[in-house]
Amino acid sequence: METAYRATPRTTPTRYRERADYDRKTVHAILDEALICHLGYLSAGGPVVLPTTHARLGETLYLHGSTGSGPMLAAKAAPSGLPVCVTATLVDGLVLARAAMHHSVNFRSVVVLGAARVVDDPAEKLRAMHCLLDHIRPGRAADCRTPNARELAATGVLALDLVEVSAKVRTGAPADDPEDRTLPHWAGVVPLSLTAGTPVPADDLDPTTPLPSYL
Amino acid sequence: METAYRATPRTTPTRYRERADYDRKTVHAILDEALICHLGYLSAGGPVVLPTTHARLGETLYLHGSTGSGPMLAAKAAPSGLPVCVTATLVDGLVLARAAMHHSVNFRSVVVLGAARVVDDPAEKLRAMHCLLDHIRPGRAADCRTPNARELAATGVLALDLVEVSAKVRTGAPADDPEDRTLPHWAGVVPLSLTAGTPVPADDLDPTTPLPSYL
Repeated sequence: METAYRATPRTTPTRYRERADYDRKTVHAILDEALICHLGYLSAGGPVVLPTTHARLGETLYLHGSTGSGPMLAAKAAPSGLPVCVTATLVDGLVLARAAMHHSVNFRSVVVLGAARVVDDPAEKLRAMHCLLDHIRPGRAADCRTPNARELAATGVLALDLVEVSAKVRTGAPADDPEDRTLPHWAGVVPLSLTAGTPVPADDLDPTTPLPSYL
Repeated sequence: METAYRATPRTTPTRYRERADYDRKTVHAILDEALICHLGYLSAGGPVVLPTTHARLGETLYLHGSTGSGPMLAAKAAPSGLPVCVTATLVDGLVLARAAMHHSVNFRSVVVLGAARVVDDPAEKLRAMHCLLDHIRPGRAADCRTPNARELAATGVLALDLVEVSAKVRTGAPADDPEDRTLPHWAGVVPLSLTAGTPVPADDLDPTTPLPSYL
């Protein structure tokens, strides 16, 4: 397999082309780190963007939903797949420049374009749900009650092949113009990260239940 | 002004209706806290979702871009406005249930539907940029070099009226079925928040420049 995705007209940005990255490892790392993604599809001819959870298995991206959700109903009505755009974004920092113009955000994002299919096969659906659980925290899928047939039927999963894919990454310091560098304004980066706090047990959890190592 | 947005068929969820919220204060708070949003629009008939920065001024949402970006070019070519869906999502926690099925994410999201217009008027554009800078950290707009005419012309801003708007919020503990509550798996919530680290000054920053109070 090639180490990079092939750029297409749709995955070639019109601006900041130097920030585009098609390397599979870069793309996979962003998809794997992002807890949620934003799923775009057409509803009654207009764009709709909804947050959802996802997980990657090799070169397939699985998206979670319920069978009655908008995108799932739209995908069921699209026998050759539902045209979607799935975007996952990690915010890494605020970039403060001396010039208003050069303020920015350090980020890593992935855009996946393609036709999403409904996962009907129970074995594939179980595998996808396993990935979705382990995406929350590796090890969780093996440490909870497996879905029964009724629950499996009530869960919707979409699959999207990673073919038309690109990442976009901005890192590092602000890029002020030379003539602005002596202005008195503070310039630099405020790092940001999504951090986990102390786990809060459910009220009805047996207090002798240990906190799992993966948390 | 009414305290809530009016629900429309497009802003009424097909699932988990009890999580929908149309209260203006709730919507405003989510838009104001979210650092970025995801902008969905149509390009060559297909959905495209891109991350961007935004800021709210009253009942107008401003979106930042460059004049050459895809959505900006599409909006320029749409005299009656570009149909968009703008979604901002805050991730507040991982919800771990005993049952695989009941795993979830605590989140607050806002979906705004409408036709975005290009902001051409220089005074409105300056006002929007002021909001976008203060959205990063309140006070920053007054503490940087104002854009000059060339920079203002190179910056694209879209405006979207907050009319067809809804929030969706999930909070609290996992919702396991009664018969699962004695299973040995840990259940509860892992709180998540986007946290700021220690600001990193630019290499060429005069070391006597104080860190602003708003950081």
